[in-house]
Amino acid sequence: MKLPEKVTIKEVGPRDGLQNEPHQISTEHKVAWIDHLSESGLSYIEVTSFVHPKWIPQLADAAEVLSSIQRKPGITYAALVPNMHGLRRALEGNADEVSVFMSASESHNKNNINKTITETLPVLKEVVSEAKRAGKTVRGYVSTVIACPYEGMISPEQVKEIGARLFDMGIDELSLGETIGVAAPTDVERLLDTLLPEFGPDRLAMHFHDTRGTALANVSKALEMGISTFDSALGGLGGCPYAKGAAGNVATEDLAYMLDAMGMETGVRMEALIEAGELMESILGKPLKSKQLEIYRKVEKG
Amino acid sequence: MKLPEKVTIKEVGPRDGLQNEPHQISTEHKVAWIDHLSESGLSYIEVTSFVHPKWIPQLADAAEVLSSIQRKPGITYAALVPNMHGLRRALEGNADEVSVFMSASESHNKNNINKTITETLPVLKEVVSEAKRAGKTVRGYVSTVIACPYEGMISPEQVKEIGARLFDMGIDELSLGETIGVAAPTDVERLLDTLLPEFGPDRLAMHFHDTRGTALANVSKALEMGISTFDSALGGLGGCPYAKGAAGNVATEDLAYMLDAMGMETGVRMEALIEAGELMESILGKPLKSKQLEIYRKVEKG
Repeated sequence: MKLPEKVTIKEVGPRDGLQNEPHQISTEHKVAWIDHLSESGLSYIEVTSFVHPKWIPQLADAAEVLSSIQRKPGITYAALVPNMHGLRRALEGNADEVSVFMSASESHNKNNINKTITETLPVLKEVVSEAKRAGKTVRGYVSTVIACPYEGMISPEQVKEIGARLFDMGIDELSLGETIGVAAPTDVERLLDTLLPEFGPDRLAMHFHDTRGTALANVSKALEMGISTFDSALGGLGGCPYAKGAAGNVATEDLAYMLDAMGMETGVRMEALIEAGELMESILGKPLKSKQLEIYRKVEKG
Repeated sequence: MKLPEKVTIKEVGPRDGLQNEPHQISTEHKVAWIDHLSESGLSYIEVTSFVHPKWIPQLADAAEVLSSIQRKPGITYAALVPNMHGLRRALEGNADEVSVFMSASESHNKNNINKTITETLPVLKEVVSEAKRAGKTVRGYVSTVIACPYEGMISPEQVKEIGARLFDMGIDELSLGETIGVAAPTDVERLLDTLLPEFGPDRLAMHFHDTRGTALANVSKALEMGISTFDSALGGLGGCPYAKGAAGNVATEDLAYMLDAMGMETGVRMEALIEAGELMESILGKPLKSKQLEIYRKVEKG
């Protein structure tokens, strides 16, 4: 297997994880957890979202989280923004990077953002321009890149079209979200066969949910095709509130295990991830779902 | 991806799954479960083991299970045998196929079978000869093909050496057991790069445990290399009593999902697997760990 030497893990747990968590977590707990994550060797943490609290009440304290975390040099602290209002708040809080988002599927976009794709594009365009003017890098998320909960399979051409529009706006990286966790490696190959000739591997990231247990198989296929940036959430937290039955993101610690076993450098320390996982388990009062935490609990119990 | 068109799933739950289950399951329940499995489209079920009850008390009722199940035409009902005494009992029960087993690691072999590798080989040779004379096909399991809980990484050459000895004895298929569930796709590639030129893909099966969540990634890599037979256990049951912390086999229903999503025919019906999973959950009085059962429970709950 030809593989990248170095892989970047982008931790999205504080945003994509917690936005779908029914449990209300205090700002203090979020900050403590993010500070723990900062000590684990991660280079990127998406810490919150400036989506209106009406939609995501779990992250209503976005500004406070962003201003309270201890920023460690070398780590990019990013925030999701849906529109200009969100961008202004993220800039006030001095997020290192902002992320914009939309869906490759018309119906999912409508359900998730309450706008058509055509209506969404100019909103994002303004946000991206303004963020770039403010000197920030911008990440673009496109969700339902393989399948949509309402429309079924999504064509790679449609994803390429949306990706091209986002790159035209000036985004620095496109994160391909497999929102509902149905993909198999063949789907990943089909998608990347279409996207790689257009965008190359270095500006693409992949974002897998592990609903059906195929996330690491998909990561492995994407790695072979040259992708070297993957999103994940500690403890497999997360899901999509607008995609019924969608389970969490691939767990950061399980992703890190496989990458390490495949000989790739990620810079993260497993022990620190486990500690951050234990902290979140104590905050939530329930076990998180990752194989590494499961093994850790078994070994601890003897 | 170049992939096999058809894949055979060999269900090892009634043996590899239940042998490690602390819960004592009645013969009646085992038989009911196997009869359910027979209705799911599987073509191979390893129903029990004739290892001495001193070692595996969970399967002390091997003869009764074998004689009580409803055999469906077209399904191979196999039994594991450790020695001539076990073989005689399996032949008395008219198992369709018998499996012999040993480890690629000296220490694991010693711990698991209480013999050195050198001492094990002549025992298996006699069993294989006698089984073949009785007109049975024989499967050879070799465990710890990637790593051993006592010795660490195992060299592919050592696995090839053991495999060659087993094929020389007359086994029909070699099942490569990744006993402790540490493998990544790169390990699978390394192993198969060594074994395939010697044995070809058609006489090899792979047997993954999902301890670290990499089982389906490993299956995907093996498929790309031409392997078309995989062992799994319904509900991810199983583990190895002599390999501490080893979690269960890859779940049959999760394997079947991925194979189907990759466009491969397996013949199994997901609905029937879910029903068999629910039956075992009610027998054990606890949820089984598979993504498909998790999704099913979520959807049922609404």
